[in-house]
Amino acid sequence: MELNRIARLAGGGGGKVLLYVLDGLGGLPREPGGPTELEAARTPHLDELARAGTCGLHDPVAPGITPGSGPGHLALFGYDPLVYETGRGVLEALGIEFPLGPGDIAVRANFCTLDARGRVADRRAGRIPCAEAAPLAARLNAIELDGARCTVRHVKEHRFVLVLHPEAPAGDAVNDTDPGRPGLPIRAPVARNAASEPTARLLAAWLEAAAERLAGRTQANMALLRGVSSQPGWPRFPDVFGMRAAAAAAYPMYRGVARLVGMDARTVPAGAPPLVDALKARFADYDFFFLHFKPPDKAGEDGDFDRKVAAIEEADAIVPDLVDAGPDVILVTGDHSTPSVMSSHSWHPVPFLLHGPPARSDDATTFGETACRAGAHGRVRGCDLMRLAMASAGRLAKFGA
Amino acid sequence: MELNRIARLAGGGGGKVLLYVLDGLGGLPREPGGPTELEAARTPHLDELARAGTCGLHDPVAPGITPGSGPGHLALFGYDPLVYETGRGVLEALGIEFPLGPGDIAVRANFCTLDARGRVADRRAGRIPCAEAAPLAARLNAIELDGARCTVRHVKEHRFVLVLHPEAPAGDAVNDTDPGRPGLPIRAPVARNAASEPTARLLAAWLEAAAERLAGRTQANMALLRGVSSQPGWPRFPDVFGMRAAAAAAYPMYRGVARLVGMDARTVPAGAPPLVDALKARFADYDFFFLHFKPPDKAGEDGDFDRKVAAIEEADAIVPDLVDAGPDVILVTGDHSTPSVMSSHSWHPVPFLLHGPPARSDDATTFGETACRAGAHGRVRGCDLMRLAMASAGRLAKFGA
Repeated sequence: MELNRIARLAGGGGGKVLLYVLDGLGGLPREPGGPTELEAARTPHLDELARAGTCGLHDPVAPGITPGSGPGHLALFGYDPLVYETGRGVLEALGIEFPLGPGDIAVRANFCTLDARGRVADRRAGRIPCAEAAPLAARLNAIELDGARCTVRHVKEHRFVLVLHPEAPAGDAVNDTDPGRPGLPIRAPVARNAASEPTARLLAAWLEAAAERLAGRTQANMALLRGVSSQPGWPRFPDVFGMRAAAAAAYPMYRGVARLVGMDARTVPAGAPPLVDALKARFADYDFFFLHFKPPDKAGEDGDFDRKVAAIEEADAIVPDLVDAGPDVILVTGDHSTPSVMSSHSWHPVPFLLHGPPARSDDATTFGETACRAGAHGRVRGCDLMRLAMASAGRLAKFGA
Repeated sequence: MELNRIARLAGGGGGKVLLYVLDGLGGLPREPGGPTELEAARTPHLDELARAGTCGLHDPVAPGITPGSGPGHLALFGYDPLVYETGRGVLEALGIEFPLGPGDIAVRANFCTLDARGRVADRRAGRIPCAEAAPLAARLNAIELDGARCTVRHVKEHRFVLVLHPEAPAGDAVNDTDPGRPGLPIRAPVARNAASEPTARLLAAWLEAAAERLAGRTQANMALLRGVSSQPGWPRFPDVFGMRAAAAAAYPMYRGVARLVGMDARTVPAGAPPLVDALKARFADYDFFFLHFKPPDKAGEDGDFDRKVAAIEEADAIVPDLVDAGPDVILVTGDHSTPSVMSSHSWHPVPFLLHGPPARSDDATTFGETACRAGAHGRVRGCDLMRLAMASAGRLAKFGA
C-alpha cells in the first residue's frame, strides 16, 4: 500500500508506538529439531508480551530474499524495500554519518591493487589496515575537480566513501567500475542515461587524479567505485505516519537509515540499558520510538549461538523498564534473521510480537519462531507491521466509506 | 492480479457460485481469551460447511487497514480496493440508488450552520431532523445553473447528495469545501487539474445559489461539499469473471456497489429468509449470486455482542435452504470485521469458508476466527477469494502453457 494513501488515513492522533529492534533476531536450530537462539534464550518478559499480545512472522523484503540492514529497517519503518531502494553509496555514507545533502552523489569506494599491466590483482588491496588506509584516504580527499567539490572519508580497512557535490544537478545512474574478479582491467564509469553523463565524466576525472596520487605504490595503488547514488526524495516518516519519531542506536548505520526517513536519531552507548534512558528521556516529546539493539546480529554473524542467546537475554532484561515508560503499542522484532549456524544474514522470516489493544487471542504463549508461526497474524510482509501497529494505536482512519 | 488477466482465464463455463456476505462478520472476544461473536454463536450449518470445506482469514484492503463498506465489498467481488477506489460522492449516490450516468459528478453534501461572520459554527447543522431537512433539499433541487443540470436528493438528517450533469465532459478532481473544524470559513471548491476547472466553477456557482436559497435561516443556512467524484469506467464483473451475476440486498448501499460492477441487483425485505427466495427465484438464469445480510454489522456498530451473536445465528439458520438451491461453490465471509467491543469497523482479518470441490482437508471443524486461522488458506487478501471460488467452480483456465 502506497505511503501517500497511508498518509491520508493517519490523522496524527492516537497512542505512542515503540519499535524495539533486536538486530538479526531470527535464527535456526543448532541441531535438527532443536531450539533456535531465540527459543533457547530465557526471555520471560518477551514471553509475557507475546502471551498477552499477538504474534506472527514477517518477510522484510519477500519470501526467499535475504535482506541487508538498510532494506530490513526500511521495511520495519513501513517503507516497502522493493519500492524504496537505497543505493549502496548512500548507505555507506549514512553508515559513517556523513551529512549528505540534496544533490550530493555518494560512492562506495575501496582501495585495490593493480598489477604492472594495469589489471586488478587484488580487488581489496589486501584489506590494508586502517592505519595505512586513513592517510591514503586523506591524500585522495585533497583531489580538486572542475565542476564539483569532492570529499573522501575513510570507513574501515580498504573501504572509503567518495561524495561528489556537483555544481549543476547531475544524475546518479553510473555503472560500477569494479570488474568483479582479478585479472581484468578496471571498468570506466559509464552513464546509463543522459542526465548522468556529467557524473560519469566527473568520476572518470577523479579516478585519473586518484591514480596519480597513488602512483608508485605496489599495493593500494588504485580505487574501485560502486553503488553511485544520491539521497532519495522520499516521503518523510513524520509526514506519512503523523508521528514525531525518535531513534536511538549505538551504531551509525542505523541512525543513518532512521535519519534518511526523517527520524530524529541520537547516539546511545552500546548495550541494552542505555536504550531505556533514551526512551524515557524523550518519551513526552515524541510519538514513535525506534530502539536498535545490535548484539544478536553480531553474535549471529560470528557464528556464536551461545553469545546470540545471551544477547537476546540481555535484550529481554530491559523489557519491564521499556513497558514502564508507558508506550501504548509495543512491536518487537528483527530487521532480518541472522542464524548463527550460517554466520550471515538469511532469508528466513522474522518473528514479531505486537502488544497493544484490541486484539484477538492467539496460540503464541512464548516468543519464538515456532510459536510465532501459530500467531494471530500468520505470515505478513515487513512493511505491513507499521500499519498493524498504527491500527492498534488508534492512528488510522477507515479506508473508504 | 489484474482483472484483464483474470478475464483471459475465465472462459464462461463451470459451476454456479454463491457469495453469502454476513456484513461485519469478524469480531473480537468480549473478555480476554473468550470467544468472538461468531465463536459464541451456535452455527451448526456453517460449522458443517467449514468442516467439509476449507477456511482462512482475509484482509479486505491490507493488514492494519480498516475497510469501509464500499472497499470491503469490492474486494469480495474480486476488485482490489487499492486499485479500484470509489469516491465518497459516488458511494453516497449509490446508497440512495440514484441512477448515476456516465459523466455525472456526485458530491456528498450536508447542511451546515454559518455564524454571523460567515464562519462555520456547526459542520452538521445540529443534525437537523429529516422532516426539516427534506424540504430544504427540495429547495436546493430547484437550483438551475448554466452549463449543467443539477439534482439534489436528501439522504438522512443533515446529509444530501448533489449530482451535476455537465453539458460538456468535466473532471472530478475538486477539493472538499469542508474546513474540517468550526470557526473557519468554508473553503472554495478548488480544481486539482485543468480538466476539473469547469466542475469547480459549477460547484462555486451552485454554492452561491444555495446560500441565497438558505438565506435568513439561523441554522442549516449553508452546505458543505465533499468527495466530488464520478462513476468510474471499471471492467464489468460479468465481463471479467464470465458469470451472469445477481445480487440481493435489503439496503441500497450494497445494491449500489453491486450495480457499480455490473451485477443485476434486486431489493429484498430485511432478514435472512428472503435471501433464500431471492436465490431460488433467479437460480436458473444466473451463474453468480451475491446475498447480503446486514444485521451482524448493525449489532456490532451498536456495541451489542449478544445481538450480533443472534444475527449470526439467524444467518446460519437459512444455510440448508441455500445449499438446497444447488450452488456448486459456496463462499461465506464478511466485508470487514465489526467487533462489538469496538462499536465500529476494524482492521482485524475476516474469517471465510469456501465449500466446493476439490479441496485439501484442513483443521477448521467449526466456523470462527480461531478455527479459520488453522484453515487451509491461511491469510489471504480479500480480492483473492473470487479467484479461489472461480477455481473451485472450474471456471479458470491454466495460466500459461
